[in-house]
Amino acid sequence: MSDLPKTVIFHEEGPREGFQIEKGSFSVADRAALVDALAATGLEQVQVGSFVSPKAVPSMAGIDQLFAAIKPVDGVRYTALWLNESGYRRALAAPNIFIDGKILLYNTETFSQRNNNCSVAEMRKRQADWVDLYLADGVPYESAYILTAFGCNYEGDVPLETVVESAAYAMDIARDRKLPLPRIILADTVGWANPEEIKRRVGAIRELEPDAPIGLHLHDTRGLGAANFYAALEMGVDMFDSSVAGLGGCPFANHGNQHGAGNICTEDMVLMCHEMGIETGIDLPLLIEAAQLAERIIGRPLSGKVMHAGLPKRH
Amino acid sequence: MSDLPKTVIFHEEGPREGFQIEKGSFSVADRAALVDALAATGLEQVQVGSFVSPKAVPSMAGIDQLFAAIKPVDGVRYTALWLNESGYRRALAAPNIFIDGKILLYNTETFSQRNNNCSVAEMRKRQADWVDLYLADGVPYESAYILTAFGCNYEGDVPLETVVESAAYAMDIARDRKLPLPRIILADTVGWANPEEIKRRVGAIRELEPDAPIGLHLHDTRGLGAANFYAALEMGVDMFDSSVAGLGGCPFANHGNQHGAGNICTEDMVLMCHEMGIETGIDLPLLIEAAQLAERIIGRPLSGKVMHAGLPKRH
Repeated sequence: MSDLPKTVIFHEEGPREGFQIEKGSFSVADRAALVDALAATGLEQVQVGSFVSPKAVPSMAGIDQLFAAIKPVDGVRYTALWLNESGYRRALAAPNIFIDGKILLYNTETFSQRNNNCSVAEMRKRQADWVDLYLADGVPYESAYILTAFGCNYEGDVPLETVVESAAYAMDIARDRKLPLPRIILADTVGWANPEEIKRRVGAIRELEPDAPIGLHLHDTRGLGAANFYAALEMGVDMFDSSVAGLGGCPFANHGNQHGAGNICTEDMVLMCHEMGIETGIDLPLLIEAAQLAERIIGRPLSGKVMHAGLPKRH
Repeated sequence: MSDLPKTVIFHEEGPREGFQIEKGSFSVADRAALVDALAATGLEQVQVGSFVSPKAVPSMAGIDQLFAAIKPVDGVRYTALWLNESGYRRALAAPNIFIDGKILLYNTETFSQRNNNCSVAEMRKRQADWVDLYLADGVPYESAYILTAFGCNYEGDVPLETVVESAAYAMDIARDRKLPLPRIILADTVGWANPEEIKRRVGAIRELEPDAPIGLHLHDTRGLGAANFYAALEMGVDMFDSSVAGLGGCPFANHGNQHGAGNICTEDMVLMCHEMGIETGIDLPLLIEAAQLAERIIGRPLSGKVMHAGLPKRH
């Protein structure tokens, strides 16, 4: 009926994006147990945490020890986030880590100023510098995140043209250095996307450059996450960031939501794929167990659905 | 991009399906306040409750008083559910009520036996009798619910052919009596649907009878509700049952889920429609206030998202 991909790749962000929004701090042992549970499911990539100051984000304390505590599974990429060069250097030195060369492109001045204290244009230049830094360390330039690609809580709707321009800039960085094109990841950072806009923007990026792989980083802030995910599948998108149990959210960008309007929920979206015959390489019952572990660690009901309802029982 | 309808009609089920799953009982005054808040939003139909024994469903106690307590708004249909003739007679006598002539068709023997203590075939015959009963009272035969139209917790997958056969039976009841065709409402009673199956089954009903209006009764049991809703929109479906704040669930059919895997959430789906330029006639800020009222009455966080995150702020 539509151009659904045969296989979909999930990049699990729960241990980083999920825990970062939490006010409390969690033991390294608990966080390592969750990462290990996720790595056992067949997920090919798990973002373990951020190399940021624990003063700014207490739940990310002990990130170096966390990486050391992981029991690495062959073939799983354990990744991290960093926001400056000292964070990046700490990441490079961490055991078990996979350094994925990624850049972040902002699309509205207010969001860029609030997060980085600099303009969109300055952030762009800094991203080109990041790519050179990666290359010096032998790290491939792999992906470009286009932030608030559907709307911004500070500036409202983000024009399609702005998003296309950012994607073109990300690809020019590669072309200027004769590198393969990065994956363009449209991030619905604060939950403004709707399914038709997903199709329109994915379509525009594909028109700009048919060869660029596309991914989506979706949030379920306003309950449209699963519909946005499906619309992207219809466009053939085959890579998604998501969070186990629906953990996560951007603490600086949302309205302090306490009810689980985080990333799209990994296991619910894996269920959707499997029910529609799309392969993910993921053992769904094991992933549901990992979601239940996340809920025990966080200590309150999380927003994932199939983890509570159970899988459909076929006979 | 797709065959989206220009206008979508929501039938609000929260006060009935939402409250029916709750263990406690709620005052008639609170329930009337919620119904009145919903009726003020532009919703054209609100299901107020069930005429059932309060011993079986304590939260439905005082349904007659509840109907009397409503402050009726012109143009709003205040409907109800009944399961037998004595319930129907009570409904007929209630003030402010709109009697919508509906029938329920079962698709698996186990579910029919458990809910009705009779076979699927016997339930079918009884539904034809219901239509005759309605006609005797001057009530048009308006809609036919095809239950567990996507899967059943007792019997697993429900074949497409079975669903088509039930829909054909519902239409034959009309044809035999030279009545207009009823709306065929495919009910994902226990949350088995996926977006591709929505398209396939809606397509099959439309192929069977292009003139039959189609509706969907969806649950978000496993997190696919919004995607299923969008897939139905893509097929041009323009009528949905839903529950404010995501209230609801079938207490006898799900796994005792306590985390809000109820109906699709009215205000989140209205947001999706409005963001995509589909009209609903509903005042979304007022509907969000009604969702917040429902949460105060129920006394715990409900699963609706936009009611917590707030509307996108445009400038």
